[in-house]
Amino acid sequence: MSLLTGNSHSLSEEEIDEYADGTVKLRNPNIELMDQDILYHVALGSESHDLREMFGDVKFVCMGGTPKRMENFAHFIMDEIGYKLPAGTQLQDISEFSYRYSMYKVGPVLCVSHGMGTPSISILMHEVIKLMYHAKCIDPIFIRIGTCGGIGVDGGTVIITEDALDGHLRNSHEFTILGETVHRPAKLDKKLARELKSLASADDPYDTIIGKTLCTNDFYEGQGRLDGAFCEFTETDKMNYLEKLRDNGVVNIEMESTIFAALTHHAGIKAAVVCVVLLNRLNGDQVNAPKEVINEWQQRPQILVSRYIRKVLAQHGQLKSLFGHHGSIKSPRRFKLVQQESQAHD
Amino acid sequence: MSLLTGNSHSLSEEEIDEYADGTVKLRNPNIELMDQDILYHVALGSESHDLREMFGDVKFVCMGGTPKRMENFAHFIMDEIGYKLPAGTQLQDISEFSYRYSMYKVGPVLCVSHGMGTPSISILMHEVIKLMYHAKCIDPIFIRIGTCGGIGVDGGTVIITEDALDGHLRNSHEFTILGETVHRPAKLDKKLARELKSLASADDPYDTIIGKTLCTNDFYEGQGRLDGAFCEFTETDKMNYLEKLRDNGVVNIEMESTIFAALTHHAGIKAAVVCVVLLNRLNGDQVNAPKEVINEWQQRPQILVSRYIRKVLAQHGQLKSLFGHHGSIKSPRRFKLVQQESQAHD
Repeated sequence: MSLLTGNSHSLSEEEIDEYADGTVKLRNPNIELMDQDILYHVALGSESHDLREMFGDVKFVCMGGTPKRMENFAHFIMDEIGYKLPAGTQLQDISEFSYRYSMYKVGPVLCVSHGMGTPSISILMHEVIKLMYHAKCIDPIFIRIGTCGGIGVDGGTVIITEDALDGHLRNSHEFTILGETVHRPAKLDKKLARELKSLASADDPYDTIIGKTLCTNDFYEGQGRLDGAFCEFTETDKMNYLEKLRDNGVVNIEMESTIFAALTHHAGIKAAVVCVVLLNRLNGDQVNAPKEVINEWQQRPQILVSRYIRKVLAQHGQLKSLFGHHGSIKSPRRFKLVQQESQAHD
Repeated sequence: MSLLTGNSHSLSEEEIDEYADGTVKLRNPNIELMDQDILYHVALGSESHDLREMFGDVKFVCMGGTPKRMENFAHFIMDEIGYKLPAGTQLQDISEFSYRYSMYKVGPVLCVSHGMGTPSISILMHEVIKLMYHAKCIDPIFIRIGTCGGIGVDGGTVIITEDALDGHLRNSHEFTILGETVHRPAKLDKKLARELKSLASADDPYDTIIGKTLCTNDFYEGQGRLDGAFCEFTETDKMNYLEKLRDNGVVNIEMESTIFAALTHHAGIKAAVVCVVLLNRLNGDQVNAPKEVINEWQQRPQILVSRYIRKVLAQHGQLKSLFGHHGSIKSPRRFKLVQQESQAHD
């Protein structure tokens, strides 16, 4: 069990060469030997569905915690990239009957909810990475669109994760595999983070920054909150902890980034995490901004990610700009997606 | 920060005396000093809602992974305890606009979805324990109704957890609080487990057993599956691991039991975990039983828990049996809940 003796290795040249066509590799020789692969938690299967036909054209996998946010994002991105559904059709939750995650597909953009916490997103990611493999998707990019607490950063700020740290400030995710502890690096694509940052506009009425993100396994005690069912530390202990985080470059706290980074890195998939701050934790613990304000804030990471998706599609000639510059939520520009064959890259 | 130096202490006599009225204690002195307590992830608040009026009569908090299962359970238990809604009303998801968890209330039974994995259920439990506190509920009993993989146990078997073990076979849950590791005992109520077991019927066309439950943070690699996006161990490694689990008395694997046990124990709440096996992991990894079969299996823990709830209500004179013996899903007996004031115990 050589895998259990230490951290995972980087991809060798040979491994990279083997997938030079850009399709997603699985570090699992068993899958191709299976008669069928049931993606149980997303209600899909390699025999029950023609996954290549359904998903072969996916270029962007966008994930967020709640089904509602991802449904909203699906409608938003449809508008932003000018994707037209056939007359008399509407978006459908592809994973509706899993009763666990929601999945919407808008042309090249897959929008999936991942629930809360690293175990929940890990189940989804195993199945979505296998979905990319079965569908032979070319170089898909994974982006998590989330909410978070800020450290010295005001509510409404958009944060792009530079490095994801676990509760012990390690830039890795700790797995327990066959009873053994395994750490895998929680690396995100720094070029993608910078590219996302470059799409923030001086006209945006909020800041967009890059920084380190702490990923915890709990919202209350695990994030130093004083308002959980239990709290056995003092406010001074809490503030010392948050200031220690800040001294280490941590600008926000959420609950999924380390495993999201570790699994995408392990699969050789480019990935980014973009979150909006719901509150500055140096000022309090309770999320008490009005619902309308929170709803508007939650659109901000979506706007940034949509600018990125439009830019990439435009670079590949898959988007025809009707207005010629980036839109915002207040004055959305309409683009028309140039229809292409889903296997255009094959 | 004395709390961080080791495991949590047991409740002292003084602490137990302090709550001799049966209301739920919070090990957090901050809550009673707060102007309002926003239970953000269940869309409730101590100022925005009259929590005592709404929830003061809750005696049983039943939790399960998916919103759909808990909605089904709410309708099932309503029928089983003969609870009547006012004419022209229907059950409503109390937490609908949290977009995170679903919550249904059927008289003394609160039915809540918890998502997947320990972080997801931990957020819910902090907020539901605080809800019990604000509502001044008397001696509420928490029961998780779940699904699991079996170790040497066939699909459809019902398993009551005796002890919850973490990925390293420790009977505790590991928390990270202010960057420090804290273990809390993952203790469930053994008397409650035996009482639930005693309600299994010889006529049930399936087994109901008690045993140890392994709680993991991942469904694929973390449970020794060969069919994830990654698998870097052999089938022999996997089987050796599963057999080691069996040798340690583990009969099933799921993803929430340690934290469910640890948080209820820490709050002095009686709790149990009842799961149905979806597959025998010694025979495979994929969940491939037909949907109708899985749906029928998922009713089995619900039937057992409903027998328990009816028994307790009957003991307290809150249930009038119309037929006089336990029902089953195929021939449900009707009981009539004797309406009582919600603050009958005050």
